[in-house]
Parts: sequence; structure tokens; C-alpha cells
Amino acid sequence: MSEITETAYIINTFFLLFCGSLVMFMAAGFAMLEAGMVRSKSVAVILVKNLGLYAIAGLMFYVVGYNLMYKDVHNGLFGTPIPWSPDDSKAMAGDFSDGYASAAGWFFQMVFVATAASIVSGALAERIKLIPFFIFAILLTGLIYPIIGSWVWGGGWLSEMGFKDFAGSTLVHGVGGWAALAGAIILGARRGKFGENGEVNSLHGSSMPLVTLGTFILWFGWFGFNGGSQLAIASADDAMAVAEIFANTNVAASAGAIIMILLGFITNGRLDVPMVLNGALAGLVAITAEPLAPSLIEATLIGAIGALAMFGASMLLDKLKIDDVVGAVPVHLVSGIVGTIAVAFTNPEASFTTQLLGICAVGTFVFVISLIIWSLLNAMKGIRLHWSHEEVGSDMAELGVRAYNLDFGKPGNNAKGD
Amino acid sequence: MSEITETAYIINTFFLLFCGSLVMFMAAGFAMLEAGMVRSKSVAVILVKNLGLYAIAGLMFYVVGYNLMYKDVHNGLFGTPIPWSPDDSKAMAGDFSDGYASAAGWFFQMVFVATAASIVSGALAERIKLIPFFIFAILLTGLIYPIIGSWVWGGGWLSEMGFKDFAGSTLVHGVGGWAALAGAIILGARRGKFGENGEVNSLHGSSMPLVTLGTFILWFGWFGFNGGSQLAIASADDAMAVAEIFANTNVAASAGAIIMILLGFITNGRLDVPMVLNGALAGLVAITAEPLAPSLIEATLIGAIGALAMFGASMLLDKLKIDDVVGAVPVHLVSGIVGTIAVAFTNPEASFTTQLLGICAVGTFVFVISLIIWSLLNAMKGIRLHWSHEEVGSDMAELGVRAYNLDFGKPGNNAKGD
Amino acid sequence: MSEITETAYIINTFFLLFCGSLVMFMAAGFAMLEAGMVRSKSVAVILVKNLGLYAIAGLMFYVVGYNLMYKDVHNGLFGTPIPWSPDDSKAMAGDFSDGYASAAGWFFQMVFVATAASIVSGALAERIKLIPFFIFAILLTGLIYPIIGSWVWGGGWLSEMGFKDFAGSTLVHGVGGWAALAGAIILGARRGKFGENGEVNSLHGSSMPLVTLGTFILWFGWFGFNGGSQLAIASADDAMAVAEIFANTNVAASAGAIIMILLGFITNGRLDVPMVLNGALAGLVAITAEPLAPSLIEATLIGAIGALAMFGASMLLDKLKIDDVVGAVPVHLVSGIVGTIAVAFTNPEASFTTQLLGICAVGTFVFVISLIIWSLLNAMKGIRLHWSHEEVGSDMAELGVRAYNLDFGKPGNNAKGD
Repeated sequence: MSEITETAYIINTFFLLFCGSLVMFMAAGFAMLEAGMVRSKSVAVILVKNLGLYAIAGLMFYVVGYNLMYKDVHNGLFGTPIPWSPDDSKAMAGDFSDGYASAAGWFFQMVFVATAASIVSGALAERIKLIPFFIFAILLTGLIYPIIGSWVWGGGWLSEMGFKDFAGSTLVHGVGGWAALAGAIILGARRGKFGENGEVNSLHGSSMPLVTLGTFILWFGWFGFNGGSQLAIASADDAMAVAEIFANTNVAASAGAIIMILLGFITNGRLDVPMVLNGALAGLVAITAEPLAPSLIEATLIGAIGALAMFGASMLLDKLKIDDVVGAVPVHLVSGIVGTIAVAFTNPEASFTTQLLGICAVGTFVFVISLIIWSLLNAMKGIRLHWSHEEVGSDMAELGVRAYNLDFGKPGNNAKGD
Repeated sequence: MSEITETAYIINTFFLLFCGSLVMFMAAGFAMLEAGMVRSKSVAVILVKNLGLYAIAGLMFYVVGYNLMYKDVHNGLFGTPIPWSPDDSKAMAGDFSDGYASAAGWFFQMVFVATAASIVSGALAERIKLIPFFIFAILLTGLIYPIIGSWVWGGGWLSEMGFKDFAGSTLVHGVGGWAALAGAIILGARRGKFGENGEVNSLHGSSMPLVTLGTFILWFGWFGFNGGSQLAIASADDAMAVAEIFANTNVAASAGAIIMILLGFITNGRLDVPMVLNGALAGLVAITAEPLAPSLIEATLIGAIGALAMFGASMLLDKLKIDDVVGAVPVHLVSGIVGTIAVAFTNPEASFTTQLLGICAVGTFVFVISLIIWSLLNAMKGIRLHWSHEEVGSDMAELGVRAYNLDFGKPGNNAKGD
Repeated sequence: MSEITETAYIINTFFLLFCGSLVMFMAAGFAMLEAGMVRSKSVAVILVKNLGLYAIAGLMFYVVGYNLMYKDVHNGLFGTPIPWSPDDSKAMAGDFSDGYASAAGWFFQMVFVATAASIVSGALAERIKLIPFFIFAILLTGLIYPIIGSWVWGGGWLSEMGFKDFAGSTLVHGVGGWAALAGAIILGARRGKFGENGEVNSLHGSSMPLVTLGTFILWFGWFGFNGGSQLAIASADDAMAVAEIFANTNVAASAGAIIMILLGFITNGRLDVPMVLNGALAGLVAITAEPLAPSLIEATLIGAIGALAMFGASMLLDKLKIDDVVGAVPVHLVSGIVGTIAVAFTNPEASFTTQLLGICAVGTFVFVISLIIWSLLNAMKGIRLHWSHEEVGSDMAELGVRAYNLDFGKPGNNAKGD
């Protein structure tokens, strides 16, 4: 469909709103996953962080982020940080070449910003203070993410060099992952995570059902994440492309989960539930950089390799005594790198060198800026909870509440509840 | 698009089914939110109330509600209470001016009815008996809601006067809120909520994760709620409108949440999680009356003001010793009033006086009828649980079960579960 | 719309991706429902089974299932078990008669396979070992389901005889149900389920909120399940049909829930929450065989009868001392039979005899094959947990973890959490 008709414009708009809604719901997925992975004394704080960061992303991307990412990108480096407002003047004049209503585009991009911020909250859970986290979320969603975004999706220098990142293995998951890694290093590990004799302690998450629910919600939302990144469905070619993206996305996630099931049985005689769930997510992250070009077998391999890399990175983080509560760095950063590199092998328009360059450029920028911000925040008022607060739990210390109030104390009531 | 083509008819139908599905899922959101806000001894009852009221709404709106709301509205006061059945005769004859398949319209309207009923269940939780609640739900979904609906969306007297309520700040959230308020007054507060010396006790909800999940689901569903209320997407103008509604809806909710975060830090030094969640919901309710006309900054303000009004109303209810378990009246009724009034400032077709008149007319009708129904039900068999039943909890008293059977009793099993 | 245009092809593709996403999310619904119905010591295992089976279904249906079901069905008995890959050659040549992009069709069918497997995991929960379950899931999704599918949806012998099963009351829910029944018989009941003196013990599920959440998610997803099975929305006729399917699906589920509420009050003086939830699901299963032809009143009746049959079957299973943890056999198999038979009364193209024949043929094949597989697996390494493992719970025994780590032990912390 060389020229975009009004009907195509309508269908594309509807499609982006559908996909954006799915991605928006991923915010719930991150919230549930993280709430389930933290200990029960840190659940309420992580929940309100997730709700809060989604709200922050929504306002920041409207007030400054969207135009910083897309509007008149200066020297390929960053756009114009002014508030966004819908502009459908072309379509109102009968020219539908924008492809879809501008607010649908804003909505779809905005929910991606929130995803990047969600990655950070998980990694730093249980020990970072609320206010510094929210300040960082403001800077990430209003400044860091949009600048990186302008380099590629805004048509900036990396895009001109030929860097390919279809739906954001690097631009979304990498950005969130690098920011999380910087924070985890500055913060240090949770008390008791790493023993004095080098042992790694499992600080068991509070609720496996919530972790699983979160994973399923993320998988569900990922169809919007990757499918919507085609940004169009209203030609036969686009429709085929979106459908293949759905299929590739699903097999990559499936492969990631299954490789972790097999690995668990082979190496340990039994599987590790969070690792299986993270395997699915790692597969999703890995396929995100290029969910269209690969064949199904390639997508399967990409998902599996992404999961294996996630597994290796989890081991490595433990060795380095970096405490990442939900495995955000292995899942989002490391599998994102794998996926971004894999583009060079499936998309003939991509080159290995440029992919690597993009990964390094984004990584350096985000990691350094994040280190600086975390350090400054730390120097100002401290970003880490006092040890006694961490001990009692962030929920009681920062909010004065408990996330669960389940009454099992009265004898007899629960006699059959075995 | 002056004339509706078959393609437009198809796209609109698909769009309404998409939006209706999102709104349907809000029933799950209300169920989770309410289950998390009540104490653990009242969870199973609130769950089955939510499932039951959705089922009741589905049947009542088919058997009597839809046509009472829409069919041949008599003197602008109410329609014709006969069972609904699909009628696509015009479209089958090649005239697509109905805009969408009739069953898609029914489905979309039906899920709104359920929303109104969900509001009531939350406010009256933990102390109202099951059967009177279900009877009220039957009357609300089959009678009260459709009559009010006929006044505006059915083309009745309020609509003719120029009253504007795009997606139901008053027609859905106000109706539910007034009915809830009447019930809360008749019922009285939960035992222990208000102390003898005037103190207000927090009866901590059982599960913050469920409350947060519910809030996210509602936010997700609200895109269908407000977006779908455009009732069309199949012209470029409609597509732009729907997209802007999505954007406005999101910033209003974001603003509601953020203002509550700020207010918490400023007034109390720390935030209150349910208040932040209710802030997002209040923002959503407030923007619902007119999610299209406002600019983004206006939508932001409307969301923030809605949340502040919700906060003030919560204080006031405590002063008045009216016990609203989930804050349904502040969120849905009070923010709904704010939103309905705000229409006069953003939509030039609306007038302040008429908006006020509509709020008062709907409020008077619903509140008085609800008071009468609750009082009659109370006089007949009593609507409130016996105090000993309330003490042991509605789950054991009314269902003989416990909502949670989590086994932590055996020593040693949970040794690491700190 | 006699000829399918590019626009229709696009809209249908979008529609199938939307519906497929909803059905995919049903995997989360099954996971939550089953996690809530099992005891807290068996939650983690059931969660990973559900995630694992969805991943298995995704890969098996790609590697072998889809083409075994659809490609060149041999003598009406089974297709060609080779890996699937997208084929849109006709559409690329401008012939849109396939109706939608091939990958959208694959995606939509794949999520149905997962549904069938989800049914099995629930029935056999708490006592079956992980590895045999996964092996069965591989055979079910790669072999049994596709062969049955080829008989009808693949154009095989049952379809040629005129057997009608619109969205899979028998092909999906029956297949899952028979496989589950065979497994439940081979496995035997959980320890303590049936007493020595014939009494039936309630082994209370761990979390009613999760069961309810799962039910709502399934109800939500079912609109995609039934609506999408029209496989087209891009003509006015199809749009009307899909909309009516949504309406019928909803009233059937509503009727199923309400009849269980009434039955509870009438027979027992109070309702049983899982039975009400299963009532809704039974209504959904029953309407699945023919959600389009019935009028609304017929759909209401079908849903109610499906729920009553589910209730009767639950009693019967208890009598037969067959332990089905979530009621999968009553809900999916028995209500599916009711729904499949009901087609003969609402769709003039269907005959009672052929419907019965189809039910018997599918039932015999799936039940016998499943019995053989379960027996072989049992003979090889045993499919049932050792009694001491069952006692301690599958989570500790098979995974070495607990699904919940909620810390309520410290005195004082939970003082107000009544």
C-alpha cells in the first residue's frame, strides 16, 4: 500500500491503541513480578514504586520526553524538550501520510518509557529509599531514555549509522538494565544476601503466584510491545509482518522457558521456578531487537540463547556480589545485548560492528550518567535505607504498613487449611 | 466520513468489542481491589459478590435494562423494559448508519452497568449480607442505572437540556457512588472502625498486592471505558479523537497518583499506598465526563483536582463516621462530580448550570431510591450481619470457608522465609 | 463481502491477533485458578507446570502440531507432521482468499492447544510428578490434540459427516477433559481426599482471590476464544456474528454463575464459591460449541444447563472417588458434552446423532490413548509422588521451595491486622 488511505490511517491508529494498551498492562506485570520476588516486608513499597513510576513516565514523557526524543533531533543527539501536544494537521487536511493519529503514537511510545523504568525498580528493591528512586525515575523517563531514543527511533546518529533495534532490546531493556546495574553497584547488596564466607543466600520471594502472574502479564503485553513496533498493520505486508512478529515472539519466549526447564533438570536434578520464568522473559527480550526477520527456528534459537545468557549473567552477578533482586540485569540487559547482536545474523541490513557500537554507546552513556546520578543522590541524602530500616523492612520503615494482613493467628480457624 | 460504509461499520464493531472487553476486565479489577482492601476474614464473600454482580448485570441488562435505557424513551424519563435482542436489519439491508453491530453496542453498554454495581460492593463490604446485596444489585442494574441512563444516553430529558457526560462520571460512577453512600448510611460502620472517643481506626486491608493489581487492571480497562465511549473509530476524526482520549485518560490518572504522592510526603512525611492508588482512580473518574475536549494540561489538572477532592471527601466521610471500605464514594462519586462540573470549563457546548442540574437530578433520584430500597430490605430481613458474624468474619459466617489457607504452622518449613 | 479485499485481509488478521492475545492470556487464568485451588504446599509446582505447558504447546504446535492438524489431512484422519512456517504466497500475489495472514492463524490455533493442556494440569495437581506431566503435555499438544483437530477443523472425517463444534467444546475442552479423566483414574486421589468411611474431605484451596482472578481472566479471554473462532470479522455479516457471539458467550457464563448461586442457597442455605466460579466456566464451555446460532434465551439456558451438568458431575466424581482438584472434568468435559449436544437443537445444520458420534469418537480416542500413555509413564518411572513427598507437598519435594514466604511470625508486627 504505497499511499496511506484514511482507512489505513484508522486501522493503524486502532492497532497502536490496542498494542499500547497491552504494553501499558505490562506495568501491572512488573508490579506483580517484583512484589512476588521481594520479601514480604518490602512488598508495599515496591508496589507503590511501580504505580508511581508509571504515573511519572506518563507525565514526564508528555511534559518533556516525547519531543526530546522525536522533535527536530539536533545533530542526531537529542530533540527539543518541550511539552508534547497532539498534531494531526496533515490528516485533518486529508493527507494521511503520518500513518496514524499522533496521540496514538504518543501513547504507544509512552508505555515503553514506563517499561524501562520498571526494570530499575525491580533490581534495586528492598533497600533503596523511595524519594531517590522517584527522582531517578523522573530523570530516566524525562531525560535519559528520550535522549537514547532520539539516537535511533528519533532518527539520530545511531540510526544513521545503520544500528537496528526493532522494538527496544537495547533502547528499552538495555537502558533500563544499565541504569539498574549502576544503581545496584552504588547501593550494594541487601543485608544477608552475600555471606561472609562467600556464600550466596536465597532471600526467598514472598509470593510465587505473583511472580508467575507478572510473567504471564508481561508475555501477554509483549505481543503489543513487539507487534506494535511495526507501527502499522494496514497493508497486507504489514499485516503479515505483525502476525509473524507475534509467532516469533511466542516461540522465543517458549524456547527461553524450556531451555531453563531442561537446564534445571540436567544440572540440578530439578528446576528453579524464578529461573524458568526469567527464561521466558529473557527469550522475549532477546527477540525484541528483531522479531520479524528471523525464521521460526532462528527465533527459537535466539530465545534459547538469550535465556542461557541470562542464566550465565545471574551466576556472574552472584560472583561479583551484585544483588539484583529480580534478575533485571540478566534478563533485560544481558539478553538484550544478545538480541541486539543477533540482529546482525538475521537482518541483512544490520552489521555486527554497528550493533556492537550501538550497544556500547548506549551502555556507556546510560551507565555513566546513571552512576553519576545515583552517586549524587547518594551524596546528598543517601539513597540506601538505614540498616535498621532494612532489617524491619521498607514497608514498615517507609510507609508504616504491612502489605499483607492475613489473619491466621486464632487457633482452630484454620484447622483444615493444611 | 459523512456516510458510514460497510468497512467503517466493521471497524467500529471490532473497536467496540475490543473496548468492551477491556471494560469487562475491570470487573476483575474491582474484585481484586476490594478483596485486597477488606480484612482477610471477609475476602471470599467480596469475591463472590463481584463475580455475582457481573453475572447479574449481564442478565438484567439483557432481560430488561438495555431497552429500559434506550428503546422509545417515554417523555425523556425511561424506555421500554422488554428483553433485548440483536437487531441488525438495517445493516443487513445495506444501510450501515447504525454504525456498528447491535450486539457490540449491547456488550459495550452492559459492561458499564457492571461497573456501577462494582462500586457499591466495595463500599459496603464486610458487613452487608449477601442476599440483600444481590437483590440491590438486581434493582440497580435492571432499574436504577437504566433509568438514569435513559435520561442522557437514551436521549432523555437531561440530554435534551444539554447535560454532557461523555463516558459516565455521573451516569456510571455517580450512580454507583450515590447508591453506595445510601447503603453505607443505612448499614452503619464496621465494628471497630470508629472509636468511642472519636478516633478513626485503620482496619488494614488484607493484601496490598491485590489492591495494586486491581488498580492497574482498572487503569488498563479505562482506556476501553473512555475510548470506547466515542462509539466510533472508523473515520479519521474519530480515530484522532479516540487517540486523544487515551492520552488524556492516562495523564489524568498519572496526575491523580502523583498529587497523592506529593500530598503524602508534604503533609505526612510519607505516602499512603491506598491513597495513591485511589488518586489514580480518582483522576480516571474525573476525566471520564469529558476525556476529549480538554488539552493535556487541562486533563492533568482535572485528574489532580479529582484526586484532591477524593482526598478531602475521604477525610469528610471519616468525620461523618461513614465507613466506606474502599473509598468508593470519594473516588467515584466525589471525583465524578468534579469531572462532571469540569466539562463546563472545557467543552463549550456544556453549561455549568446544566452540569450542576444533572448532578443534582441524578444524585437525588439515585440516593433517594437507594435509601428507600436499602431501608425496605433492612426492614424485611435486615441487611447487616449479626455482630457476632461480623466479628468472626463474613467468610466463615456466610460461606463457612476461609479465603486463604496458607500453611505456615509447621515449624522449620519457613525458616528462611524472612 | 463475497471476495476478500486487502482491507478485509488486514482487518481479519488484526482481529485474530487480538482474539489470540486474549486466549493466550487464558494461560494466566488457568495458572491462577489452579494455584488458588491447590493447597499452599503445591502451589509453586502447579505454577511452573502452567508456564511450562504453555511454552511446550508453543513449540510443539510449531514443530509438529499445526501441520499434523491442517496440512493435507490423510483419509480424514491426520495431517502431515512437519514443522510449520508462514506461507502468505497467495496474499503476496494479490489473492487474499486465505482471509488472514498465515501466522495469525497459527497464533490463534496455538493458544487453543495450550488451553487443552491447561485443563489436564488442574485435574492432576498435587500428586503427579513434574516430568511425566511435561511428557504428557508434549504428547497431548504435539500429537493427540492435532489429530483430533484434523478430524474436524482440519476438514477430516468428522467434519465431513457434519459434526459441528464451533470453538471447541469437544475439540479443546473435551480433549483436555478426557485426558485429565484418564490421568485422574490412573493416579488415584490425593491422600486424605476420600476417607475410609466413604466421606469426602474438602482439601481447602490456598487462595480464593487467585481462583477468582483466574476465573475472571478466563471469562475475559473467552471472548477471544469464541469470537475469534468466527475467523473473520471483515464483512458486515461476520461483524454481526462476532458481536452476537460476544453477547451469547456472556449471558451463558452469567447464567452458569447465577444458577449455581441459586442452587447453593436453595439446597444448602449458602453458596459455594468455587462452585459459583465453576458455574460461570461451565456456562462458557457449554456455549463454546455453538455460540452464534442460539438466541439469547437459548444461550442462557445452555449456560445454565451446562452448569447444572457440571454440578451433577462433581457429585458423581466424588461418588466414584475420582479426585479432580479443580473440577476440570465436570467443567470442561461434562459441560463440553452438554454444549456439543445442544448444537443439534440450535443449529439446523447439526444432527443429534452426529454430535453424539463425534463426542464418542473423540472421547474414545483421547481417553484410550491417554490411559495408555499414563499407564506406560506409570510403568516406567511412576507418575505419582511418593506418599511422603505428597505429604510434605510437591513444592518442597520437587522444587525445594515454598510458594509463599509471608512473614507473620514476629510478635507485634501484625497487631492490627485483624
